[in-house]
Amino acid sequence: MIKAGIVGGTGYTGVELLRILATHPEVQLHAITSRKEDGLAVADMYPSLRGRVNLAFSAPEKANLNECDVVFFATPHGVAMAQARELLAAGVKVIDLAADFRLQDPAQFEKWYGMSHSCTDLLAEAVYGLPELNRAAIKKARIVGNPGCYPTTMQLGFYPLLKAGIIDSGNLIADCKSGVSGAGRKAEISTLYSEASDNFKAYSVHGHRHIPETVEQLQKISAQPVELIFTPHLVPMIRGMHSTLYARLNYEIDNSALQALFESAYAEEAFVDVMPFGSHPETRSTRGSNTLRLALHRHGSTVIILVVQDNLMKGASGQAVQCMNLMFGLPETVGLTHIPLLP
Amino acid sequence: MIKAGIVGGTGYTGVELLRILATHPEVQLHAITSRKEDGLAVADMYPSLRGRVNLAFSAPEKANLNECDVVFFATPHGVAMAQARELLAAGVKVIDLAADFRLQDPAQFEKWYGMSHSCTDLLAEAVYGLPELNRAAIKKARIVGNPGCYPTTMQLGFYPLLKAGIIDSGNLIADCKSGVSGAGRKAEISTLYSEASDNFKAYSVHGHRHIPETVEQLQKISAQPVELIFTPHLVPMIRGMHSTLYARLNYEIDNSALQALFESAYAEEAFVDVMPFGSHPETRSTRGSNTLRLALHRHGSTVIILVVQDNLMKGASGQAVQCMNLMFGLPETVGLTHIPLLP
Amino acid sequence: MIKAGIVGGTGYTGVELLRILATHPEVQLHAITSRKEDGLAVADMYPSLRGRVNLAFSAPEKANLNECDVVFFATPHGVAMAQARELLAAGVKVIDLAADFRLQDPAQFEKWYGMSHSCTDLLAEAVYGLPELNRAAIKKARIVGNPGCYPTTMQLGFYPLLKAGIIDSGNLIADCKSGVSGAGRKAEISTLYSEASDNFKAYSVHGHRHIPETVEQLQKISAQPVELIFTPHLVPMIRGMHSTLYARLNYEIDNSALQALFESAYAEEAFVDVMPFGSHPETRSTRGSNTLRLALHRHGSTVIILVVQDNLMKGASGQAVQCMNLMFGLPETVGLTHIPLLP
Amino acid sequence: MIKAGIVGGTGYTGVELLRILATHPEVQLHAITSRKEDGLAVADMYPSLRGRVNLAFSAPEKANLNECDVVFFATPHGVAMAQARELLAAGVKVIDLAADFRLQDPAQFEKWYGMSHSCTDLLAEAVYGLPELNRAAIKKARIVGNPGCYPTTMQLGFYPLLKAGIIDSGNLIADCKSGVSGAGRKAEISTLYSEASDNFKAYSVHGHRHIPETVEQLQKISAQPVELIFTPHLVPMIRGMHSTLYARLNYEIDNSALQALFESAYAEEAFVDVMPFGSHPETRSTRGSNTLRLALHRHGSTVIILVVQDNLMKGASGQAVQCMNLMFGLPETVGLTHIPLLP
Repeated sequence: MIKAGIVGGTGYTGVELLRILATHPEVQLHAITSRKEDGLAVADMYPSLRGRVNLAFSAPEKANLNECDVVFFATPHGVAMAQARELLAAGVKVIDLAADFRLQDPAQFEKWYGMSHSCTDLLAEAVYGLPELNRAAIKKARIVGNPGCYPTTMQLGFYPLLKAGIIDSGNLIADCKSGVSGAGRKAEISTLYSEASDNFKAYSVHGHRHIPETVEQLQKISAQPVELIFTPHLVPMIRGMHSTLYARLNYEIDNSALQALFESAYAEEAFVDVMPFGSHPETRSTRGSNTLRLALHRHGSTVIILVVQDNLMKGASGQAVQCMNLMFGLPETVGLTHIPLLP
Repeated sequence: MIKAGIVGGTGYTGVELLRILATHPEVQLHAITSRKEDGLAVADMYPSLRGRVNLAFSAPEKANLNECDVVFFATPHGVAMAQARELLAAGVKVIDLAADFRLQDPAQFEKWYGMSHSCTDLLAEAVYGLPELNRAAIKKARIVGNPGCYPTTMQLGFYPLLKAGIIDSGNLIADCKSGVSGAGRKAEISTLYSEASDNFKAYSVHGHRHIPETVEQLQKISAQPVELIFTPHLVPMIRGMHSTLYARLNYEIDNSALQALFESAYAEEAFVDVMPFGSHPETRSTRGSNTLRLALHRHGSTVIILVVQDNLMKGASGQAVQCMNLMFGLPETVGLTHIPLLP
Repeated sequence: MIKAGIVGGTGYTGVELLRILATHPEVQLHAITSRKEDGLAVADMYPSLRGRVNLAFSAPEKANLNECDVVFFATPHGVAMAQARELLAAGVKVIDLAADFRLQDPAQFEKWYGMSHSCTDLLAEAVYGLPELNRAAIKKARIVGNPGCYPTTMQLGFYPLLKAGIIDSGNLIADCKSGVSGAGRKAEISTLYSEASDNFKAYSVHGHRHIPETVEQLQKISAQPVELIFTPHLVPMIRGMHSTLYARLNYEIDNSALQALFESAYAEEAFVDVMPFGSHPETRSTRGSNTLRLALHRHGSTVIILVVQDNLMKGASGQAVQCMNLMFGLPETVGLTHIPLLP
Repeated sequence: MIKAGIVGGTGYTGVELLRILATHPEVQLHAITSRKEDGLAVADMYPSLRGRVNLAFSAPEKANLNECDVVFFATPHGVAMAQARELLAAGVKVIDLAADFRLQDPAQFEKWYGMSHSCTDLLAEAVYGLPELNRAAIKKARIVGNPGCYPTTMQLGFYPLLKAGIIDSGNLIADCKSGVSGAGRKAEISTLYSEASDNFKAYSVHGHRHIPETVEQLQKISAQPVELIFTPHLVPMIRGMHSTLYARLNYEIDNSALQALFESAYAEEAFVDVMPFGSHPETRSTRGSNTLRLALHRHGSTVIILVVQDNLMKGASGQAVQCMNLMFGLPETVGLTHIPLLP
C-alpha cells in the first residue's frame, strides 16, 4: 500500500483527491494537513465523505508527512516549493497540483506568479505531469508538476496536429470555457451563486497564467515558434471544461486523414476518447471521471478541435493520481475507473 | 421630485433600489454612500446601470444626506439606528431595510440580534412597513422598518385566516424556500456557486431571526397566542421565495368560502394576486416585480397556502419603495409597474 | 455472475442502472431493450458510457430476456405487469422500478394509476423493495416493487417514530423537494431548462401518486390510522431530494432519546446515515451515491426530520440494485460503494 | 396608438413581445393568435402577465389582423411569407422574427431552410431590421426581416473594423455562446433541464442557419469577400448571449485608435454600449434590456471583440420593437427603457 499525504486539503482539488484515494485499492490515506482546520474531521467539512474517510485535518507539524510515500500539494502557488526539498530528502515523492513545478523557465514563473522560485534545482529535476505526452519521464520522477486544467485540454487537442507539422503554430486560438469550481473554494464575491449563475463572461483575456505553461509545452512538440491566443470564459456550471481550438492547416489534408492522425495518436490511451469526426462532446459526459473527450471539425483550411474534460479530474486531481500510478509502477487506470455521472 | 439617498448601496437590496428608483418618475437619486467604495461610479460596480445611473458612491460624510427627503438604509443590522435620529431631526424620512426598526419589543431585538437597541424612543415611533396590513400608519410615518422577506410571505399568507379566527394559531407551520440572493452580496464560502448550485438544504432550523418579527405581527392580527414553526431552505436560484404554509382549521368551512376570504381581503391590493383555488404559483412569475402571488389548497382540516414573491422586490426593495410612495402621498404603484421577467 | 437485463433503458433510471451495473463485480449486462432505439449503441445515446458499456439497445423480441437471472423494468407504469408472468415462469427474477408492484391493494392501483391491474396474483406475491424495513422478504422474493423516490424518504424518516408509537400518526406533514431528473427523460415543456431553471414551485398538491404507497407502508408500521399531508416541490437541480417531515409528539421525550431512537434503528444500515442532532443535511452530500442522510430538529412538541438522498440512486436505481444484491445472496453494498460527487 | 397583433405568441419571443408591448405607451395590443390555444387567456399560460395582459389567444381566422397597424410574426420559419401579402395589401406593416425575410438571396433561403420562398417579390422589398446599420431603410419599410440573435452580435461586433477596412475579411472567427431560451419553447429532450443544466457543449459546428444571413450582411459592409467560421455553443443559463469575435488586422493600428473607431461608430446609438478597452462584459448586465455591450482586447495582430446581449431582447423581440418604433416615426427608445435585472 502506498501511504499518501495531502497538504492543504480543504479546497476542491483536495476533496477530489480524497474522493479518489479513499477507494483506490493501492493507497492508504496517511494524513491531510490544514493549519486552520487542525483537528476537524474531514467528514465534518465534507459530509459527502461521512463513513468513508475517517481522517481529521492536522496541522502540518503534526502530520508526519515524512512517513508518506507520496505527498500531494493541493495548495496555493508557492507552498510546494517551500516544502519539497525536505520531503524528497526523506524519500517521499511529490506531486504539486499548483504551478510551482510546471514552468521550466524560472523567469517565466517569476513573471507570471509574482514571486521568485525558491528551488530552481528541483525545478530543473521536476517532470511535467501530462502522462499522454510525457509518460516515460513521469515513471522515473521524484517530483511532478501537475498540469493546469486549461493546458491539459490545449496540449492534448493541438498535439497530433503540431507533431505532424501540418498546422501553422504561429496562429493558434483557444477559446476555452470552465465551470466555476476551477476558481477554487475561496470566499470571493465574483464566484458567489448570485453573481456567477445565469451569467456568462470572459475573464483574464489580457493574459492568463496558463499561457506560459502551454506555450512552453507546445514549443517542445512543434519545431516552430508557437503563438497562442487564449480566451478563458466562466460557465455557470460546477465542473466541466470545454475548449474550442482553432488551427490553420499548412496544406490540404482530407478529413479522414485528420481523424486518423488523432486516432492513432491516442489509440493506446485509456483516458483520451477520440469521438467520431463532426461530433459535439458535452462536458457532462466526463463529469466525475478522468476521461478527456475530443472531436474534430473542419471549415476550409481551419481545423476546429472540441475538447471536454472534468476540470477537477483530468484537469487536476484525477491526472495527479494517474501520475502517481505511473510513479509507483501501478497500472495507469487503477483507482480511476469512475463512470461519468449523467445526468 | 423626492430627493432620495441610499446608505450602503453595494449589496443586492441597494442595487435593486437603484434599479427601481432610476426609473421612478417622482424620484431624484441624490446620494448613495459606501465608505469603502468612495468615488467609484455605481455603474463600474454594476454594469447593468451603465448609462442609467450616473452617481458615484460617496463616503457618508460627503453625502449630505440631510438634504434628502428620504433615506433608505440597505445596510447590516445596527447601522440605521445609529444614524436615524440626526436624519429625522433634519426632516428626512427614514426607511430601514434591515431589522433595526422591525421588532417593537427591544428585548426581542437584543435577544435575536445580539446588540442592545440604541434608540428605543424611535423604535416606539417606528412603523412596520407592510402596506397591505398597515397602510394608514405608514402614510403618516417618519420612520419605517421594512419587513423581512420571509415575514412578508408568512403574514400575507396567514392574515385572512387569522383575522377570521378560523385556524388554530397555536399550530402554524411555514416551510419556506429562498433564492440565494437573500443571503446578500457577501464573500462567503457557503453561498459560492460551487457550493449552492445543484444543491438543496434547510438552514437555521433551530431558530431564524425572522421568527420574532413574524410572531409579533401575527399576534396583533390574532386574538390568540401564536405558535409558529419556521423552516427556511436555500434554493439554487438567484431570486425568488416560495413559502408553503400549513394551518389547521378550527371548524369546517368549504373551499369556496376559504377562497372568498382571501379574495375579499386582497381585492383592493395592487401587489397581491390571489390565484384560483388549487393553483401552483411559480417564483418566476414574480421575478423582478413587486407582486406577491398566493394560492390555496386543502386536505381535510388542513389549509395549505402557497405564496411566492421576488425576495428582492416585494421581499425588500420593492416594498420599501411602496412604503415611500405612501409616505409621500403618491399613488402606491408609481415606479413599481415592472412586468415579471419570464422566462 | 448474474446475467442482468433492463427493459426500457433510455430513461434516467435506465442509464443509472447501466452506470451502476457496468462496474458491479457480480453482474454481467445481458440485454437492454428499447423498441424505438433498436440497434443504437447505448454509448451513442449516453456518451458518458463510451468505452464502458458496449451493449446496443435491442427490440424486446430480440433480447432473449428469458436467459437473464434478473430483469429490471425502467419503464412507464403498466409495462412490467404485462411481462412479469412470462419472465417468472422462465425463472427470471423481476425488479420493477415503476409502480406496478408497489401498491398491495389493486383498488388503490386502479384509482391512482387509471388502469386495472392485470396480474393481481403476482401483485399478492410481490415484495415491497425497501431493504431497511423489509429485508427478510426481499431476500426471498421473486418479484420486487421498487419504492418511489419520495416514499423512501418519508418511510425512513418517520419509521423510528411511528414504530415507537410516540407521534400522532393522524397528523403527518411531508414537505418534499425533488430535483428535475425525477420527472424523467421525457420531452415536455414544463421541464425544459428555460422553464424549470431559476424557478421554484409546488406541484400536484391536490394529490400525488406517491401518497397511497406511503400511507400503505406507514400503516403497517403504525398500529394507528395514518393521515399524511404530502406537498411535493420542484427544485432547479438535476439530482437530489430533500424531505422536511413534521410530526407531533404524543408525549414528552427529550432530544437525546429521540436521537437514540434513530441511531439504534439504523445502527446496522450501510445506506442510512443518522447525522448529529440539529444538523442540516445537503442533497449534494448524497449525489451519485446510495446513501440517505437524515437529521432531527425539535420545536416544542413538533419533531422535524430532514432527509436527503439522490433520487436516482437510493430513490430508484441504487435501491433496485440493493434489492438485487439481497435477492441473490450478495453482500448488500457490493457495487454500490460510490462516494458522492462533491462539489 | 398603434394597434399591434402577434402571430404565434406562445413561444419565448412571443411572450417577450407581450412583456414589452404591454407597457409601451404608444401601443395597443389588438390580438395574439394561436390555433392550438384558441380561447386560452394569455395570462393562464404565462402567469407573469396576470393582471397586465387581458388578451386571450385566438385562432387566426378570428383575430382580424387586417385591422392592425403592425403584425409581428413570432412563428416558425415559413409562416410569415404565407400571410404577409394579404396583410400588406390591407395596409398592415409586417415584422417577421423568423427567417422568411432575412436572407435576400432566395437560393440561400432554400438551401439553408429546406423550403422554397413563396413570395420573392416581397423578399426583394423586405428590409433587414438591424437599426444601427440600416436605420434609414427601416423607417420606410412595410416589411422587416428581424435579424437572428447571433447575427446581431456578429454584425455589430465586426462592423467598425470591416467598415474601416482594417481587418482580413477572409479570416473571421465567431465563437458564440447562447442561453437555452434561444432554442425556443419546444418540447425537446436536448433542452430539458436535466440535459442542459450543469453542462456545456458546441452544436451545429458543421453549419448553422445564421451563417448565410451574417455573411450576406458583412459582405455589404466590406468591399471584400467574407469568410466566417461560426461556432455556436449552449450555455446553462436562460437568457444571454456572448460572442467572442476574432479578427486579424491588415496593418498596425494602436489600441486607442481601435477603441475610437468603435466609440465613434456607436456614439449616437442608444442600445450599443462600447465599454472601456480591455473590459469583460457579462451577459447578465443586459438581462431583460435592449442594450448590447461590447469591449475590445488585443493580442499582436489579433483583435478580440467581446459582445453580450439578451438574446430575447436585442437578439429578438426588443430589436423588433425598436424597428417598429422607427417604422412608425416614434423615438427609437420608447417602450424599451428596461434596466437590466441584476442580480
